[in-house]
Amino acid sequence: MSLVVQKYGGSSVADADCIKRVAKRIVDTKKAGHDVVVVVSAMGDTTDELIDLAQQVSPLPPARELDMLLTAGERISMALLAMAIANLGFEARSFTGSQAGVITDSVHGKARIIDVTPGRIREALDQDQIAIVAGFQGVSQDTKDVTTLGRGGSDTTAVALAAALGAEVCEIYTDVDGVFSADPRLVRTARRLPRITYEEMLEMAACGAKVLHLRCVEYARRYGIPVHVRSSFSNREGTWVVDGTDNDMEQAIISGVAHDRSEAKITVVGVPDKPGEAAAIFRTVADAEINIDMVVQNVSSSASGRTDISFTLPKSDGQAAMAALAKVQDQIGFESLQYDDQIGKVSLIGAGMRSHPGVTAKFFEALANVGVNIEMISTSEIRISVVCREQDVPAAVAAAHEAFELGAEDEQAIVYGGTGR
Amino acid sequence: MSLVVQKYGGSSVADADCIKRVAKRIVDTKKAGHDVVVVVSAMGDTTDELIDLAQQVSPLPPARELDMLLTAGERISMALLAMAIANLGFEARSFTGSQAGVITDSVHGKARIIDVTPGRIREALDQDQIAIVAGFQGVSQDTKDVTTLGRGGSDTTAVALAAALGAEVCEIYTDVDGVFSADPRLVRTARRLPRITYEEMLEMAACGAKVLHLRCVEYARRYGIPVHVRSSFSNREGTWVVDGTDNDMEQAIISGVAHDRSEAKITVVGVPDKPGEAAAIFRTVADAEINIDMVVQNVSSSASGRTDISFTLPKSDGQAAMAALAKVQDQIGFESLQYDDQIGKVSLIGAGMRSHPGVTAKFFEALANVGVNIEMISTSEIRISVVCREQDVPAAVAAAHEAFELGAEDEQAIVYGGTGR
Repeated sequence: MSLVVQKYGGSSVADADCIKRVAKRIVDTKKAGHDVVVVVSAMGDTTDELIDLAQQVSPLPPARELDMLLTAGERISMALLAMAIANLGFEARSFTGSQAGVITDSVHGKARIIDVTPGRIREALDQDQIAIVAGFQGVSQDTKDVTTLGRGGSDTTAVALAAALGAEVCEIYTDVDGVFSADPRLVRTARRLPRITYEEMLEMAACGAKVLHLRCVEYARRYGIPVHVRSSFSNREGTWVVDGTDNDMEQAIISGVAHDRSEAKITVVGVPDKPGEAAAIFRTVADAEINIDMVVQNVSSSASGRTDISFTLPKSDGQAAMAALAKVQDQIGFESLQYDDQIGKVSLIGAGMRSHPGVTAKFFEALANVGVNIEMISTSEIRISVVCREQDVPAAVAAAHEAFELGAEDEQAIVYGGTGR
Repeated sequence: MSLVVQKYGGSSVADADCIKRVAKRIVDTKKAGHDVVVVVSAMGDTTDELIDLAQQVSPLPPARELDMLLTAGERISMALLAMAIANLGFEARSFTGSQAGVITDSVHGKARIIDVTPGRIREALDQDQIAIVAGFQGVSQDTKDVTTLGRGGSDTTAVALAAALGAEVCEIYTDVDGVFSADPRLVRTARRLPRITYEEMLEMAACGAKVLHLRCVEYARRYGIPVHVRSSFSNREGTWVVDGTDNDMEQAIISGVAHDRSEAKITVVGVPDKPGEAAAIFRTVADAEINIDMVVQNVSSSASGRTDISFTLPKSDGQAAMAALAKVQDQIGFESLQYDDQIGKVSLIGAGMRSHPGVTAKFFEALANVGVNIEMISTSEIRISVVCREQDVPAAVAAAHEAFELGAEDEQAIVYGGTGR
């Protein structure tokens, strides 16, 4: 008898009928002889509704209380799911993050898991019960306050529990059939990937693929938990996210093309070209708690002794970053700031590119052939990313997908979506 | 600096505006120099909506999971209330029943408080914070599961916390101005009682007055906590529920008239008149977990050697009691069962009746004068209750109120209502 951890997102438990269907699937897994631990998100729009309520009483609600409020969402869905399972004749018990032993730091709204002590979950399993755990939440080690894990939190809860319990697999149920070679809304021939390595999945997630969150994949890689991403609306196999160290002769050079239209670009114009200036700029941004993505510094023209520094960051942090930088303009001595939110990022990802030269050239040629201008470039061992105009993203993705022959004609993709937690 | 515990019911926090108004009132209390602990119910119809969801996924949801589900209601209201207070510039922290140290037994849906260990509440108060506590819920001592306290649970939470913290007063905010000499919807001259003893309030609550629950008053009496019942919609003084042992020369003979239309009457016809028969009947009802109220046994006619036994019970338990009794008909040997749900109970309550003879006679005369027939009678030291036809209740209440001159002309009552928890 093996242990399976399943995670169901908000769209999978959007209403009573959805919950009953999910209950049936869980019971089927139990009937097949597995121990089952289920991690569940809040129903459909519950979180948005709660946030709306919060904003009606306070423009800037304290983070501790916002966490207390939002965790009511999973409390509702997990209790209903346990009831639906009981109604099918199986015993189920729901557990809050705290009860499930999800111990976090004290950073409300984006707490990090620092330990998982699932004693009560084990007890439930020992009694042949199905354990239902609230995703996205935990309890802080220091203050014993309720915390939330931020975006991707429920996926992370599931993988963390799978690791702590020694599960055979962590199944992430979502509203798509798995991870695709490109966003099927942009590329009709996009192909479901039957298998992808943790490293590739990390790059995909970091580059805009919404199906799995970075933190969850990082956690899975660290503990070697196989993750099976699949649809809660069908019984098809999805995508297995696994270790890539075994000798896989058939490993593809390129796994997929990811894109991201959620970033903006800030250019700091006329920065004095002397040591410490770039550091001062990025310290300013870091102190505003903003994560930046790509960075480019132009070659300094020796005539002026000044240079331009551009970087990308989430659009949602754009105003805050501009304000923080404007405050230190005199101190740092740059000339001006430019803000551009009409950019897009297109990334080519594949573990095989490590050993295959010429990938970059082929990628750039494909973009040039469809008239896409490259504005910034960033690479890792298994990824090449470019920034282009936002409206060029569809053409760029399609061209890259075509150039590396990633498409399939036998499989038609299902609607692509993605939930926040 | 004294400690005040305030409890706000669901109608007082029905929406964002209500919550903001309650926050203002709490802050005013804090500004007046008090430490404040607030107990809050779920917003307006939240509980009903959650129960409806539960019934959509399961006709008979497990009690543990129902408790987990329903406690989401207070989690939402308490977090929002803490936010609203923070928005007024005061620090507030919300605590679940478990966090507040409300320890209960394991009877889901109607758990009893067995201990209160409010360490975290004290800590919050020590840090000059306003503590917001979820009413109606606790954590079971044995299983560490989330429990709910059943009807009147939030009032009980408030009084229990007031006792554990040594509060000066427990203020119960509701949608009426206090406790009245009769239901103002039935008696226009009904008068707000400025003061009532625990004993009288217990009898009032047991006899249908919905403003305070029996358990809450029992708790307050046991620990000597003064309870101030008042409206959250005005600043008027309400009703003080206090100890009656001090020598109060002006104590009224009669405090008020309560009525209850929620009961039904079961008559067990033709019970063999021999020892143990009545015991067998009430054992059967007790085993079905049904509380009975009044009991009358007719004088046995020596000819038949049989008697009739009537008792009243909540209408909601009527079907269950009839079914349980029908099962033991042959064993006990009674002739038949009669069910009557068209009854009403009218009760006269007053600590002064202990030392004033003639109250019963005056009460019955008043009923006779308006043509109300008495079907059952039950008395305590400070109460006389009669059962009559349900449609006679308004006339009976008005007649008794008039006969004992309980009315006032100077004060007009506000709409009467009452919440469940």
